[in-house]
Amino acid sequence: MQSNSFDVIRVPTHGPGDVSGLMALVGGGALEPSSILAVLGKTEGNGGVNDFTREYAVAALCNALSSHLKIAPREVEARIAFVMSGGTEGVLSPHMTVFARSRLPEGADERVSEKRLSVGIAHTRDFLPEEIGRDAQIGETAKAVEAAMRDALIDAVCDVHFVQIKCPLLTAERVKEAAARGKTVVTASSYASMGYSRGASAIGVAKALGEIGADVGEGRLLKDWSLYSSVASCSAGIELMHNVVILVGNSRFSSSPFKISHAVMRDAIDLPAVMRALESVGLSALDAPSQSRLVNIFAKAEASPDGAIRGLRHTMLDDSDINATRHARAAVGGLIGGVAGTGAVYVSGGAEHQGPAGGGPVAVIARV
Amino acid sequence: MQSNSFDVIRVPTHGPGDVSGLMALVGGGALEPSSILAVLGKTEGNGGVNDFTREYAVAALCNALSSHLKIAPREVEARIAFVMSGGTEGVLSPHMTVFARSRLPEGADERVSEKRLSVGIAHTRDFLPEEIGRDAQIGETAKAVEAAMRDALIDAVCDVHFVQIKCPLLTAERVKEAAARGKTVVTASSYASMGYSRGASAIGVAKALGEIGADVGEGRLLKDWSLYSSVASCSAGIELMHNVVILVGNSRFSSSPFKISHAVMRDAIDLPAVMRALESVGLSALDAPSQSRLVNIFAKAEASPDGAIRGLRHTMLDDSDINATRHARAAVGGLIGGVAGTGAVYVSGGAEHQGPAGGGPVAVIARV
Amino acid sequence: MQSNSFDVIRVPTHGPGDVSGLMALVGGGALEPSSILAVLGKTEGNGGVNDFTREYAVAALCNALSSHLKIAPREVEARIAFVMSGGTEGVLSPHMTVFARSRLPEGADERVSEKRLSVGIAHTRDFLPEEIGRDAQIGETAKAVEAAMRDALIDAVCDVHFVQIKCPLLTAERVKEAAARGKTVVTASSYASMGYSRGASAIGVAKALGEIGADVGEGRLLKDWSLYSSVASCSAGIELMHNVVILVGNSRFSSSPFKISHAVMRDAIDLPAVMRALESVGLSALDAPSQSRLVNIFAKAEASPDGAIRGLRHTMLDDSDINATRHARAAVGGLIGGVAGTGAVYVSGGAEHQGPAGGGPVAVIARV
Amino acid sequence: MQSNSFDVIRVPTHGPGDVSGLMALVGGGALEPSSILAVLGKTEGNGGVNDFTREYAVAALCNALSSHLKIAPREVEARIAFVMSGGTEGVLSPHMTVFARSRLPEGADERVSEKRLSVGIAHTRDFLPEEIGRDAQIGETAKAVEAAMRDALIDAVCDVHFVQIKCPLLTAERVKEAAARGKTVVTASSYASMGYSRGASAIGVAKALGEIGADVGEGRLLKDWSLYSSVASCSAGIELMHNVVILVGNSRFSSSPFKISHAVMRDAIDLPAVMRALESVGLSALDAPSQSRLVNIFAKAEASPDGAIRGLRHTMLDDSDINATRHARAAVGGLIGGVAGTGAVYVSGGAEHQGPAGGGPVAVIARV
Repeated sequence: MQSNSFDVIRVPTHGPGDVSGLMALVGGGALEPSSILAVLGKTEGNGGVNDFTREYAVAALCNALSSHLKIAPREVEARIAFVMSGGTEGVLSPHMTVFARSRLPEGADERVSEKRLSVGIAHTRDFLPEEIGRDAQIGETAKAVEAAMRDALIDAVCDVHFVQIKCPLLTAERVKEAAARGKTVVTASSYASMGYSRGASAIGVAKALGEIGADVGEGRLLKDWSLYSSVASCSAGIELMHNVVILVGNSRFSSSPFKISHAVMRDAIDLPAVMRALESVGLSALDAPSQSRLVNIFAKAEASPDGAIRGLRHTMLDDSDINATRHARAAVGGLIGGVAGTGAVYVSGGAEHQGPAGGGPVAVIARV
Repeated sequence: MQSNSFDVIRVPTHGPGDVSGLMALVGGGALEPSSILAVLGKTEGNGGVNDFTREYAVAALCNALSSHLKIAPREVEARIAFVMSGGTEGVLSPHMTVFARSRLPEGADERVSEKRLSVGIAHTRDFLPEEIGRDAQIGETAKAVEAAMRDALIDAVCDVHFVQIKCPLLTAERVKEAAARGKTVVTASSYASMGYSRGASAIGVAKALGEIGADVGEGRLLKDWSLYSSVASCSAGIELMHNVVILVGNSRFSSSPFKISHAVMRDAIDLPAVMRALESVGLSALDAPSQSRLVNIFAKAEASPDGAIRGLRHTMLDDSDINATRHARAAVGGLIGGVAGTGAVYVSGGAEHQGPAGGGPVAVIARV
Repeated sequence: MQSNSFDVIRVPTHGPGDVSGLMALVGGGALEPSSILAVLGKTEGNGGVNDFTREYAVAALCNALSSHLKIAPREVEARIAFVMSGGTEGVLSPHMTVFARSRLPEGADERVSEKRLSVGIAHTRDFLPEEIGRDAQIGETAKAVEAAMRDALIDAVCDVHFVQIKCPLLTAERVKEAAARGKTVVTASSYASMGYSRGASAIGVAKALGEIGADVGEGRLLKDWSLYSSVASCSAGIELMHNVVILVGNSRFSSSPFKISHAVMRDAIDLPAVMRALESVGLSALDAPSQSRLVNIFAKAEASPDGAIRGLRHTMLDDSDINATRHARAAVGGLIGGVAGTGAVYVSGGAEHQGPAGGGPVAVIARV
Repeated sequence: MQSNSFDVIRVPTHGPGDVSGLMALVGGGALEPSSILAVLGKTEGNGGVNDFTREYAVAALCNALSSHLKIAPREVEARIAFVMSGGTEGVLSPHMTVFARSRLPEGADERVSEKRLSVGIAHTRDFLPEEIGRDAQIGETAKAVEAAMRDALIDAVCDVHFVQIKCPLLTAERVKEAAARGKTVVTASSYASMGYSRGASAIGVAKALGEIGADVGEGRLLKDWSLYSSVASCSAGIELMHNVVILVGNSRFSSSPFKISHAVMRDAIDLPAVMRALESVGLSALDAPSQSRLVNIFAKAEASPDGAIRGLRHTMLDDSDINATRHARAAVGGLIGGVAGTGAVYVSGGAEHQGPAGGGPVAVIARV
């Protein structure tokens, strides 16, 4: 059986259009462009509907990698899975995490005794505006997750620790376009559509991994918060109309020097869960040498939909100046930044059906 | 020598005008209105120039206590020190902490063997707009801190663990009024004036407590970040023109069932410092039974003025959508909320000269 | 038949809690407190869910008028109709418009030959959270409008030129309370609920005035934008659970020295409509002496729901930093401020079913 | 003497990265890429420090024009003057205005009897952070304005009607870099630095055009508001360190079918001034056929620094949620959009020394 090696590199950025850190790795020989599988970035926009830092970052990366890969910028985006999550509120620091895969030659038995980090990629077809936040998006996402597991050479769902989805949102123009065809969309609010799209994607992940029953459909979306995936992380962006899936887990066909594991935060102040996630890959919070082996933490943040945390009122949902997703990212980013000892962690907002209501998954990648 | 007993009660609020929790304590006999010395609240405004939730909360408290104290609402404000800190970003939960003092009869020897929590109050004269952020404010604040120490029956500066200051800010109208008298103010920007006012107040505290030399003046304000107080916490508000000082420490003349201690966060992600602060009053983070003895945590938050945390860029200072103080409160509130196991903690923004640049003091009050 | 005289006075304010201008009128004898019928104010909050400047302003007014009216503050609110519309974006200037009514003695024939400004007041019962934005709110509002017409001694609907409604909104707590009783609400988003509540109220006005058919129900709310009232102006606020109706028109039983008329802006840049509204009460825009007879302009502003104005894209609905209502108020306020020659005009956001989609009513009160 | 022809085309955009409208003109032969002199765009960012829509738009334009001009993207920026002004608040609609110049062959006497629209371009050297908002920026800008007049073949300063400047701002990183060299900057606040940079640039224009004395220096910057240019329009952006000058006026060496003129708004609600500007190029506001000859209106907007408009308080400067520049653009955009009958007008924020305090220049280009 074929086996793979993987590299996972965290690169700080100076702005949404900054590719200098990545290009330095390429120029210095530390990163072979053709091995790049996926890039997960945190960009410094508002993470909302009009966050153009995401598409700007992707455009800059495509332009920069185009000549190295000897393909047009547009084709770069088809080949590499880019997920830019907007919003670096509070202590969060803009950066990207690059996932690279080298296929080892058949017979090259570099397999290690334990399972190691492995990554798989897949994507769905483009959705129509009226399909977003509905069964079509749920079903197609589930199929894409299964494809990504095969791509990662992971058999067991318990070895999947992080499934990042990039999904579309509705804009005033897209709603209009659907209406012109006589179709109604799940919501006319662009901001609200981001929640529907993330929620449908997460339900798709949960179905594919057997976390919820196969019969769960759009009717329970954003309503039944007992339904969730413990490993899904979904970001909505204006720049695409399909779902991109980046699946990370541990595989016996990987010889990478990394491991991944995860825990589930039950609410936004669940410090013990973050510490457990670290310990599950052999790291210890509050221990600086241990922190040096940390590659990155990936977490979801959201304002608990019932307006309270452990019985006390929060004000995120009733704030008409700052969107709840920005509040939640800032707060959870502060907590995880404190545990990680750095603000360059991946905390993404909007955790509908990604972990329990008000909480979310937290995955950790460490060097073995 | 006279000795005192103190009570410290944390009360959640349903809105800036909500006094029902406090009134229930009064109505139920748990709190004697005439014993109330100070109220430190977190209200849910933006914490900026146009945050009217602070003055609204104070007006509501004055109206509510007026009949119980049998004085006019305006006189209530002169008698009780109200400090409302605006901004409950992220997981922070609106609440107030009430400090009450009962003078024990001379001879009633309730003194305990160790020093216990004690509170003292003082205030400065009203400032002119042109005095804000300048030597006049520094000097008057230092004098008021000394008065508050005497009021708290605390002799040694090492027994002072938290000095909360409420200070004024400049508005377009106040700047105009000063200009009409031919005076220039330290800054024409209202938002910027909040930083000057907080900074001058903190320098005043540091001088009074001997943390910096007596010769430090306005020339180094907001410039020399090596100058700071480890226990000052300053909030600027539109509703007053003088400084109010609430000083909390431990005194051998107190028989209260509480202790206070503090640590200093060196930056916004200094989780170990927060844990040390808890341990210094005998609590253990991550331990739920221990958390039940926690009364409140008081911390300052700010975006590090050099634009980076541990060498990595943050984006708080360059965000034209959300003020840096809101970012910082959300992030530090997330960290401290995680350690405390509750969002009802007092995290206040704008830590100029309150702790090292980018960091800040963190004080903890616990039931013994 | 009884006839009335009315006074309409515009008073600038220095802050949401400032009642000094109103009290000066009372103190100087220019305004008899017991004659005050209604106060329409613009306060400087965000006009959104967490805009506490509205309830703060009402609390301050109730406290100030309480001793003059010799009733408790709470009873003042029951007697005078207070409508505070939050949001003074751009050139808009915080102020209040006071409507006062003096009942003339029977027989005192002060009637003038033409119809003059008259005001009527009414209110609905409190709504349950699940009734907001639904048929119950529509129906009760229609009944209250009819009561207000009778109170204003106006017979013909064509003499009604401005119907201001203050209506409730949903908060996370109210949604939770309804859910606890097994009820679902029209939307879980507080911000979105403001639109539903304003829309249902406007539909209620339109039904009462015969602008739309009696059979129109909640099913077409926020969907069929061809349904609207040309004189409704609705503001949602967190501080009440019922609808308050202030109806202004011209009546032959009024001897006031004022007239009111209105026009309908077809979109947010409909300058000719604003000019027509002025001309309909005998004023001429661009003519300073004429402007001195202007008492106030009352207009509604909204971002056109199709995302475009005269075929060109606007970005108000896709902005995740500033809510569309704030954008729209700022823009329409700039236009109307230019015509009025002052920023102290009443421009209120959220014009669902108040005028055509993207436009809104504009009423003008002038001294004869 | 050489003479020129000019084209001025307004192109709507679908997003900051959208170049499809411009490329359609190029593809259809309506616009020769090599003739493009300058592009003035309104992009939909916040117009503040972290508005990346400006650099994204420029990057997209450079990439798109690169192949047509057969030069590298970076060289496109050196050849064409791009000025992207962020912020399309309220009714403002994202668009760009393309200025193209064709040099007519010597002897081709296409000169018309009257002066026609002409455009000239120039730029300064890169500034150091410590030079921004100071004499160096003032002096270099004045020299560049003179060069742009020569480039436009305009002799008399009275024929200059609009001078657009793109200027740099300070970021936390740039301030740090200067500090590392032992230099202090004019302000450590990025947002405040935008005002200094715009102000210094405007003073430079005023000096070059003889509007103020040659001896005016940085000491009166942002202090003496009686000093201003009636034709300067300055936008600060993070993406450059030098000033770009686009000067538009009427020249007898131009055979373009356009004219430009201007007026000065004395405050943000100066509707008569906007109408005068239209009339000065032969258009009549409120007249739809006339509006069809309008090419674009270019105006500056700002919150009056004394906090009031015609004696009544505005709240733009004390709003800690929305920056004053966004408020002002929305309001003035509403007024000018109403006069123009379209939201696709160029209203740019921050009018320090560009027109009188609180007001600003308004220029109109019309087809003859």
